[in-house]
Amino acid sequence: MILEIAQLDVKPGMEAEFEKGVAEAAPVFKRAKGCRGLSLQRSIEKPGRYRLFVEWDTLENHTVDFRGSEDFKEWRRLVGHCFQEPPYVEHTKPVNKWF
Amino acid sequence: MILEIAQLDVKPGMEAEFEKGVAEAAPVFKRAKGCRGLSLQRSIEKPGRYRLFVEWDTLENHTVDFRGSEDFKEWRRLVGHCFQEPPYVEHTKPVNKWF
Repeated sequence: MILEIAQLDVKPGMEAEFEKGVAEAAPVFKRAKGCRGLSLQRSIEKPGRYRLFVEWDTLENHTVDFRGSEDFKEWRRLVGHCFQEPPYVEHTKPVNKWF
Repeated sequence: MILEIAQLDVKPGMEAEFEKGVAEAAPVFKRAKGCRGLSLQRSIEKPGRYRLFVEWDTLENHTVDFRGSEDFKEWRRLVGHCFQEPPYVEHTKPVNKWF
């Protein structure tokens, strides 16, 4: 299991539309190959900044399967117009969860 | 509930020592006021970069209670010497977790 962490900076005033778009996109992730979790967090220090957390079975499920799919275009159609700048995406592997 | 996301860049070659230090520090977080979760992720793209996720009941449980405690010094004693640069810390609020 790997974790995709996407830093998403949203245009001022488009926060509600962005959040609605992510909610609408949830089924897109739900049906994506190897996708195991989807959650959204909003920065306290920078309220226009969000972090989308997506759990995938493998790195390639995100970078190859999802990004190469029609559903990736659907995801971008739903939220892409809200982005202030291109998303900054990282992937991580769990070391441990203590509690 | 808020989420602390700490970006921790570790000195080359000190990754194992850092991970051991976080494991040793888990009881420090476990007993901290309002602390509800602790997990560590390691970047795939930048293997010296970690993200520590700490769940707190309130922002002040982290910024006031924990940072002002003796246990914060203990945390830094256990891992501080592994840091390549000062930690970059953000706090977020959950918008939603869909699955």
